[in-house]
Amino acid sequence: METANKDRSLVSKVMDGLVSGIVEEKYGAILPPQDVLSKEFNVSRTVMREALSMLLARHMLDVRPKIGTRIRPMRDWRMLDEDVVSWRFRAKPDSQFLRDVIEFRVLIEPRASALAAMRATPAEIAGIREAFDAFRSIAPTDPAYQDADELLHTRIVAASGNQFFQQMAAIVRGALSAVNPIIMRKESSWETVVRTHGRVVEAIERHDPKEAEAASLALIDFTSDEVEQAFPVSHAERV
Amino acid sequence: METANKDRSLVSKVMDGLVSGIVEEKYGAILPPQDVLSKEFNVSRTVMREALSMLLARHMLDVRPKIGTRIRPMRDWRMLDEDVVSWRFRAKPDSQFLRDVIEFRVLIEPRASALAAMRATPAEIAGIREAFDAFRSIAPTDPAYQDADELLHTRIVAASGNQFFQQMAAIVRGALSAVNPIIMRKESSWETVVRTHGRVVEAIERHDPKEAEAASLALIDFTSDEVEQAFPVSHAERV
Repeated sequence: METANKDRSLVSKVMDGLVSGIVEEKYGAILPPQDVLSKEFNVSRTVMREALSMLLARHMLDVRPKIGTRIRPMRDWRMLDEDVVSWRFRAKPDSQFLRDVIEFRVLIEPRASALAAMRATPAEIAGIREAFDAFRSIAPTDPAYQDADELLHTRIVAASGNQFFQQMAAIVRGALSAVNPIIMRKESSWETVVRTHGRVVEAIERHDPKEAEAASLALIDFTSDEVEQAFPVSHAERV
Repeated sequence: METANKDRSLVSKVMDGLVSGIVEEKYGAILPPQDVLSKEFNVSRTVMREALSMLLARHMLDVRPKIGTRIRPMRDWRMLDEDVVSWRFRAKPDSQFLRDVIEFRVLIEPRASALAAMRATPAEIAGIREAFDAFRSIAPTDPAYQDADELLHTRIVAASGNQFFQQMAAIVRGALSAVNPIIMRKESSWETVVRTHGRVVEAIERHDPKEAEAASLALIDFTSDEVEQAFPVSHAERV
């Protein structure tokens, strides 16, 4: 364990040094080649490779053939560890987890929808409309349904233009994956779900933040009621 | 690069297998010893050690001397990559980043304060009061000021009882570190900042969610106005 820990702390130190250089704009847009960096930091190529690959995995760098290792815009740097998010949502949800998920969606999505209604570009609006049209043409029993739902919600959150909201998209997707199997047990739900998504999309198209926020909240409220019927939360946990 | 990538994908596969076992409650509270796990997954001890250390770093496991490797409660699993958050906040903020940070605080903190007013246990309330008393006794020029401010905000977010809000505490701390140096240039700000923090704390103590939310919002609004004066945002970016 000793050697591994020593290597890891060296890799951490190198990562830290690289990030310092990046945020101080020492390197410009393209990082120097690996062997130059290894010399600069006085570490083996293996350690440098490991440090660079940790930054790559976090969407901080991009390898471009023939160009080199590009530094990605900071808003792309991935704050959320998507592995942990997906693992967390893989576990069978208990009622407290579902409560927390719904509270968090109520927090993020209505506000993100309102910001999207204020800021979405024509291309973003077209992307949202396209995702909605795909979504409403797929039956909830179709395996593609979940992906279509996730794409629509992801595009709305992305159109908020706020990088912190955008970073939360993976949690929104996780929430949908936890909640959809519960609400889609009822056939009557689908129609309501499609209609309410439509309200959100149209409000964004009309640049109407208040209606976008209200429609998004209505959508989550509906989901939340359905979840509660299927999965009653004890009184002690309700507030 | 080939070998490193191959190792990494093997480590990923092992992590995934371990997590599957954990969420299916295959192991109980304590993981089997490393050599048993290496045999189970048919990988070298080095690969297993690497996979376990990745889970340790994400607060999914805990090494307890004489007991073994304990599986931590899922709500502790760290969704936010705190390295990336701190790197992101280390860069000199531009006006769009500050806008996004403030929008995100407006989203998280008032609601977290309201939930804290509803749910905080007596021990959590005592912790919040203690952090506030420490905070207000420290001048903003004191190097300990930033830590005291962060501790107070972290305890409020923790008392919300919602694990997603709790996960966001690192972003709240980052926001404070970005914003405090800007607002603390003005001496008159400190008094207002302390008084407004006091309003939030007292509302939580009285279990008054509406006042906690309003006071928290007032605190961020004050900060936001100060930031805007010090760092004007162009009209194109305002909404």
